[in-house]
Amino acid sequence: MRKEIMFAGSGGQGVITASIIYAEAAALYAGFHVVQSQAYGPEARGGTSNAHVILNDIEVGYPKVTQPHVMVCLNQEALDKFGDKLRPGGLLLTDCGLAHSLRQFDARVYCLPMYEVVTQEIRLPIAFNICVLGALAGLVPDVQPDALREVLRRRVPARHLDKNLLAFERGMALAAGAEPWRAGVPRHVSLGARGEGLNGNGKG
Amino acid sequence: MRKEIMFAGSGGQGVITASIIYAEAAALYAGFHVVQSQAYGPEARGGTSNAHVILNDIEVGYPKVTQPHVMVCLNQEALDKFGDKLRPGGLLLTDCGLAHSLRQFDARVYCLPMYEVVTQEIRLPIAFNICVLGALAGLVPDVQPDALREVLRRRVPARHLDKNLLAFERGMALAAGAEPWRAGVPRHVSLGARGEGLNGNGKG
Repeated sequence: MRKEIMFAGSGGQGVITASIIYAEAAALYAGFHVVQSQAYGPEARGGTSNAHVILNDIEVGYPKVTQPHVMVCLNQEALDKFGDKLRPGGLLLTDCGLAHSLRQFDARVYCLPMYEVVTQEIRLPIAFNICVLGALAGLVPDVQPDALREVLRRRVPARHLDKNLLAFERGMALAAGAEPWRAGVPRHVSLGARGEGLNGNGKG
Repeated sequence: MRKEIMFAGSGGQGVITASIIYAEAAALYAGFHVVQSQAYGPEARGGTSNAHVILNDIEVGYPKVTQPHVMVCLNQEALDKFGDKLRPGGLLLTDCGLAHSLRQFDARVYCLPMYEVVTQEIRLPIAFNICVLGALAGLVPDVQPDALREVLRRRVPARHLDKNLLAFERGMALAAGAEPWRAGVPRHVSLGARGEGLNGNGKG
């Protein structure tokens, strides 16, 4: 069972680190064969960063992601640039504060306020990619949360570990409470207004 | 002009980070198209880590390293496991304190006391991979030292930047003064005994 996962966003969002943590967790603690990669063009300096993980029960043959089962797009540019590559029936995870303009995909689409959580609640913006991994762990069953937590404990500097683990838990909780987005349906409850109403304008 | 570079060593040696820094420098500041990747098997937990960089003037086609032009092996196990993959006429860089048993390759072989430099002189063992990048910059012309320094300035935490830049410079200096290793010829002057004699026993 080959499974392709693509992470895309801007350089500073930690897309490559997230994909390496996911790859390590899959290989070290979930028993998969894994290839993790990223391609850079000369335009990479200001541009969109994207990283790939391929999981398989047997050795990974072709090492390139062609049509990801799971796509993580952390801003609008990444969504516009890579969204069409998503495999029909796949899963798209995006951030509702950073990607404002969603359209219908032949896929489950989750649009969660992960960036809002790490900036306003946890107050550690660099933990954004870890919150994303938490959401992914809640949405995709292949790599268990404990496998990811184990890699976080090994990789995250001690002084930031608690907040990163919290970001991870909050990402999982966002996923647990989420309904797939559908065009025309308000897409989530804002953190600030939880329980008070719905809000579909993308800033949540 | 496609060029394949392989980094191999144990997990804690920073092999993946080194290859990502090299890939970023090549793409962002040297104008190459680059693919960076690593494969993990389920045995990865205790094992040898290896990471790949492919540079090209045009978009990288096949994304897998098959016969690296440049191989960096940071311990004996990596050398034993991957040495035979080196392209004839290529370049092998290894550490003379960590890989004790060298054999003849159809390649230029450099065996430098990089680990000794970072542990005994700079006293920051985690800068080992950066010292290795310095040696590589001195031995391989494709990616200029300034391109690598630029990525280090962006990536290394401020409190460790000076020592990492020093490790990089010392790696370059080791490369500048090095002769290729040949079987039967003592291979380097130890740091401790510099100017006093030659030493071929691998702890040099």
